[in-house]
Amino acid sequence: MKKLINAPEDVVREALEGMQAAHADRLRICFDPFYVVRKDATAKGKVALVSGGGSGHEPMHGGFVGYGMLDAACPGHVFTSPTPDQMYEAGKAANGGAGVLQIVKNYTGDVMNFDMAADMLRDEGIAVESVLTDDDVAVEDSLYTAGRRGVGLTVLMEKLLGAAAEKGMDLAGLKALGDRIRASGRSMGMALTPCTVPHLGKPSFELAENEMEVGIGIHGEPGRHRVPIAKADEVAAMLMEPVLSDLPFKAGESIILFVNGMGGTPLIELYIVYRKAAEIAAKHGLTVSRSLVGSYITSLEMAGTSVTALRCDDTLLGLWDAPVNTPALRWGV
Amino acid sequence: MKKLINAPEDVVREALEGMQAAHADRLRICFDPFYVVRKDATAKGKVALVSGGGSGHEPMHGGFVGYGMLDAACPGHVFTSPTPDQMYEAGKAANGGAGVLQIVKNYTGDVMNFDMAADMLRDEGIAVESVLTDDDVAVEDSLYTAGRRGVGLTVLMEKLLGAAAEKGMDLAGLKALGDRIRASGRSMGMALTPCTVPHLGKPSFELAENEMEVGIGIHGEPGRHRVPIAKADEVAAMLMEPVLSDLPFKAGESIILFVNGMGGTPLIELYIVYRKAAEIAAKHGLTVSRSLVGSYITSLEMAGTSVTALRCDDTLLGLWDAPVNTPALRWGV
Repeated sequence: MKKLINAPEDVVREALEGMQAAHADRLRICFDPFYVVRKDATAKGKVALVSGGGSGHEPMHGGFVGYGMLDAACPGHVFTSPTPDQMYEAGKAANGGAGVLQIVKNYTGDVMNFDMAADMLRDEGIAVESVLTDDDVAVEDSLYTAGRRGVGLTVLMEKLLGAAAEKGMDLAGLKALGDRIRASGRSMGMALTPCTVPHLGKPSFELAENEMEVGIGIHGEPGRHRVPIAKADEVAAMLMEPVLSDLPFKAGESIILFVNGMGGTPLIELYIVYRKAAEIAAKHGLTVSRSLVGSYITSLEMAGTSVTALRCDDTLLGLWDAPVNTPALRWGV
Repeated sequence: MKKLINAPEDVVREALEGMQAAHADRLRICFDPFYVVRKDATAKGKVALVSGGGSGHEPMHGGFVGYGMLDAACPGHVFTSPTPDQMYEAGKAANGGAGVLQIVKNYTGDVMNFDMAADMLRDEGIAVESVLTDDDVAVEDSLYTAGRRGVGLTVLMEKLLGAAAEKGMDLAGLKALGDRIRASGRSMGMALTPCTVPHLGKPSFELAENEMEVGIGIHGEPGRHRVPIAKADEVAAMLMEPVLSDLPFKAGESIILFVNGMGGTPLIELYIVYRKAAEIAAKHGLTVSRSLVGSYITSLEMAGTSVTALRCDDTLLGLWDAPVNTPALRWGV
């Protein structure tokens, strides 16, 4: 297993210690239980945004904690849901008196544990709402999911809701906006190579030298089909066409187009995929109003890419452009 | 060869087309010859900063073009120096009347071609100075270099000189500042896996399942030694100790600490390396005043890391904190 780690059981804690050391100016990290929270406490009257999920998808979610995005994030062990305890403590630490909005990717463990944490927080008189992402069009149910998996849209959701919360939107407004974003975005991904979970020590699946997996999940869960490696333009089409036809996106609409790297794919390849994805969007009569290209929701060192399209209006574009200051996404401040 | 590309000969052009599509708001890309230039022309009276080098190290350098950093960048073919023609055209396009500062990594082809381009620009009455980076302590000469290789310090150099140029520093001042930065920074890298240049189609070298290469260059050039895989903490020490003892950095000094990913290494591992690198710096009595963790100067999909330490004072810290707005580094704006 070729990894820059010490012991597999220390990976999450030591990575958090590294984050703490690198970003002590803006993040505070709790180690018992694990959560990442903004150093400047949530402003009074501002809804606290809390997300979380298994580790191994970095920078998501800890790298999105900061002004204009999340107030707290709970990292589970690699590819393992965080516990209700973590989510409860993170919610309590982040709460600024205006309630907590949980942003939850649709995986059975995440959903169940965030539900339990919500109940625990409500027992203490804290108002809690949850927004789900289930944007992956590849499969209807999967290894870890009833219904569709939550993937790339989560990054956009966290940015947009973070901006709205910063502008003072209340809990009910954020819940409604989150549901609208959920209904307006779709994603699909693929992999050229598997990845290795540190405590397992071997690749979670096998792909032959000439194979790729189309529709893969962010934990290496099987996708739609395993096919011979294709050119980047064909790959972009295999991902974009199902994404665009699912919602469906309609000619004349404006979108945010996000081409994501799975962790082991160089940026030069992501731009080649983006080139074709943008061309396909244009052919469908869509205007790409904003773009994001980079590795933001990953699967350890997996080589591959995913595309996310989000239908947007001036409200969402304004929220996208609003200042953000996190380790992984930063502009305007 | 598992890559998201179309044809190997189209990789650089198509990636540039993707960059153009994704960043049309701030970049303009010339395709004959290849160069990336700020969309807003260099302000009158501002020195134009131009860099470049082989492709395959993305986001360097094209991803660093924008306000507060580079005015133009010349991408060569993968791991191949750009031509004097590219550098000349980029310099002419970026020149705002106050001259051109070339930032050149110490590789024989880059140095020779930037020299020729400088002569061509001077023939047209444009003042040109050059600053070299040769911060890699691993080897004295290498496959492509007389003297030390220029690596991670280049990223910091481009940020710092870019900020100084934006503040109105003249060509002579920038040259002197660049030489000071060159003398104040050191780097070293390692790889767990090789990478594959698209037009070669196979890995540029071999590493056994239990081996790593310490002191490797950003083109997979041999380093100091090939050794059994070690823990992340040991790797951090193998890189930091030679870096710190070379300058040498002295107790009481302040540094910018940059832990870079080689392209195929997940962020979670880089934070584990950063954790130990920062601890080693502290043990040497150094204050880490600023940090950068991420994949900014890469070798395609190579798995590995490099560390860069730059001695800094309040002037350099002020330049580091100054606003920057490029595809790959952005804050304050």
